[in-house]
Amino acid sequence: MFTVRLSDDGRAVEILDQTLLPNVIKYLRLETADDIYEAIFSLRVRGAPAIGVAAGFAMYVLAQKLPDDEAFLERLRLTGEYLCSSRPTAVNLSYAVCRMIATADANAELPYEQRLSVLKKECMAIYNEDRAMCRAISENGLTLVKSGDGILTHCNAGALAATEYGTGLGTLLLGKEQGYDFKVYSDETRPLLQGARLTSFELNHAGIDVTLICDNAASLLMKQGKINACFVGCDRVAANGDVANKIGTRSVAINAKYHNIPFYVFCPSSTIDFDCKNGDDITIEERSGDEIKNMFFKKPMAENEVKCYNPAFDVTDAELVTAIITEKGIARYPYTKSLAELFGKD
Amino acid sequence: MFTVRLSDDGRAVEILDQTLLPNVIKYLRLETADDIYEAIFSLRVRGAPAIGVAAGFAMYVLAQKLPDDEAFLERLRLTGEYLCSSRPTAVNLSYAVCRMIATADANAELPYEQRLSVLKKECMAIYNEDRAMCRAISENGLTLVKSGDGILTHCNAGALAATEYGTGLGTLLLGKEQGYDFKVYSDETRPLLQGARLTSFELNHAGIDVTLICDNAASLLMKQGKINACFVGCDRVAANGDVANKIGTRSVAINAKYHNIPFYVFCPSSTIDFDCKNGDDITIEERSGDEIKNMFFKKPMAENEVKCYNPAFDVTDAELVTAIITEKGIARYPYTKSLAELFGKD
Repeated sequence: MFTVRLSDDGRAVEILDQTLLPNVIKYLRLETADDIYEAIFSLRVRGAPAIGVAAGFAMYVLAQKLPDDEAFLERLRLTGEYLCSSRPTAVNLSYAVCRMIATADANAELPYEQRLSVLKKECMAIYNEDRAMCRAISENGLTLVKSGDGILTHCNAGALAATEYGTGLGTLLLGKEQGYDFKVYSDETRPLLQGARLTSFELNHAGIDVTLICDNAASLLMKQGKINACFVGCDRVAANGDVANKIGTRSVAINAKYHNIPFYVFCPSSTIDFDCKNGDDITIEERSGDEIKNMFFKKPMAENEVKCYNPAFDVTDAELVTAIITEKGIARYPYTKSLAELFGKD
Repeated sequence: MFTVRLSDDGRAVEILDQTLLPNVIKYLRLETADDIYEAIFSLRVRGAPAIGVAAGFAMYVLAQKLPDDEAFLERLRLTGEYLCSSRPTAVNLSYAVCRMIATADANAELPYEQRLSVLKKECMAIYNEDRAMCRAISENGLTLVKSGDGILTHCNAGALAATEYGTGLGTLLLGKEQGYDFKVYSDETRPLLQGARLTSFELNHAGIDVTLICDNAASLLMKQGKINACFVGCDRVAANGDVANKIGTRSVAINAKYHNIPFYVFCPSSTIDFDCKNGDDITIEERSGDEIKNMFFKKPMAENEVKCYNPAFDVTDAELVTAIITEKGIARYPYTKSLAELFGKD
């Protein structure tokens, strides 16, 4: 099973269609900008690292379709802008796109074939860096927990969200390999149910003890003493440590604080946006009310004329976050200082 | 439209089947103990006051089926125990059942027909007291809010949960009649989606501005300043003010506290259990994982072998509750004192 890869012929991005899980395991071959836009927009490929990797591959695949003329770079830039608009909150998307454009720019003097060859190397580098990153994050995360711990997860920050171990779930997968027993409680994560469809699927297949719960039950479990730590991924982290992640993450963090339970954010460095001072600067993507009322259901769950508000993300205040686990190490509050130190900023 | 009533011939409990809302409006005629048990267990009739009223009617309907012999009272008691086991957390259920049994006991000397006639009067009294109670709670609730307020609701404590105005939503319905404008945000309330299927349906039909959200979005809305107060009902309130209510209520209360937003519990006095010292004494009903994975969905949302934990209720700590609104008046923390004073206990 794989989440995202470059096809053997290099002409397509291949992904596992995550909208069909857990009922159907189907791979898609994406060849056009529209295919890729639709796959990212519709969450067929999702999770910040996986989107970044897919975008890197996509830029290489689409570069090969551009004519070899003086507008090559400008056309590639427009393609990148189009892809970026599919998920505006996902910083990894624009990171990978910008990196591919910068590579094309820096090699603009090379002959066409060599330029494409450099772009291929660059997207493979993004992919391999992601694998190494997941491994390093997982090793760092494992220092924070012990065998027997009860772990609450929200959304899916597993291998399905990245390339290999994943970020948030990587610690659990690596721990399992090393003989740790965890008791994982997976929030189903409305409205798109990534916790039910993806996290419980992925952990169950990895042989990890996982129990699915409604998001509403998390607070009771914390009170019952079943949760020793909360594990979440992130879509964008501001320089001050404010965390944009799947809607409901903020509520998990506030509940964890109330119950004195550590709340850990697993964060590849590409997800940290040092240009973004704090959470107020993060645009919250709003999605269709159809996801709440109709999607997945046999019949509509509310009348057609009932209004919906469906923000896809929320922002968790930095002071609610016990630690941010990156591939470079673990940062703790206050994050403006600890993140800058970890990444050698200022 | 009505929620629950005694049939004209007095031989059946008639209910609106709430499991079919909002797509189908269908009434059921319940004549046997099994019919009534199933309707309560499957939430065809739900909401603490409505269950109490239905149980009162049911005891009268079922009493008429019992032979006129010396085992009448014992048979009625067994029938009551069976009905009570359908929703162990709902104190109104056992309240109504016990009241009907006590009435039968007190009138055991009367001839059979007269005894049944007294039981009919008693169940009608429970019904009429519920209507008066809803009105009084709504009037008390209206003193706590102002026109223009944004109100967050969890689950359904509306007319569909009671006989007329309802408890939690009664303030909104009464306010609407008196010219108040509210902006209501209704948590969809997983797993059974009472907020989507019932609250948004009911408020929309009453012409109140209602927006449906996922439970996960409540915290973000609070942060955005859209919520001025949270309104919830309750299934059982302990003497110290701990509140058992629909799963997820505890999380709403903890989030409200974090954001300094008042959290109001609407509570008929029949829901207060003075014999229950605090929330630790309340049994939490656990329901099937099928409600999480399969119910309502076109396809299963998790694999068959994935475990689920599906507690139907949680307990909100008394110190998180800004006020408890009853038909007798409004109680505030510390509740052991304020509730005892309001109801003349000590």
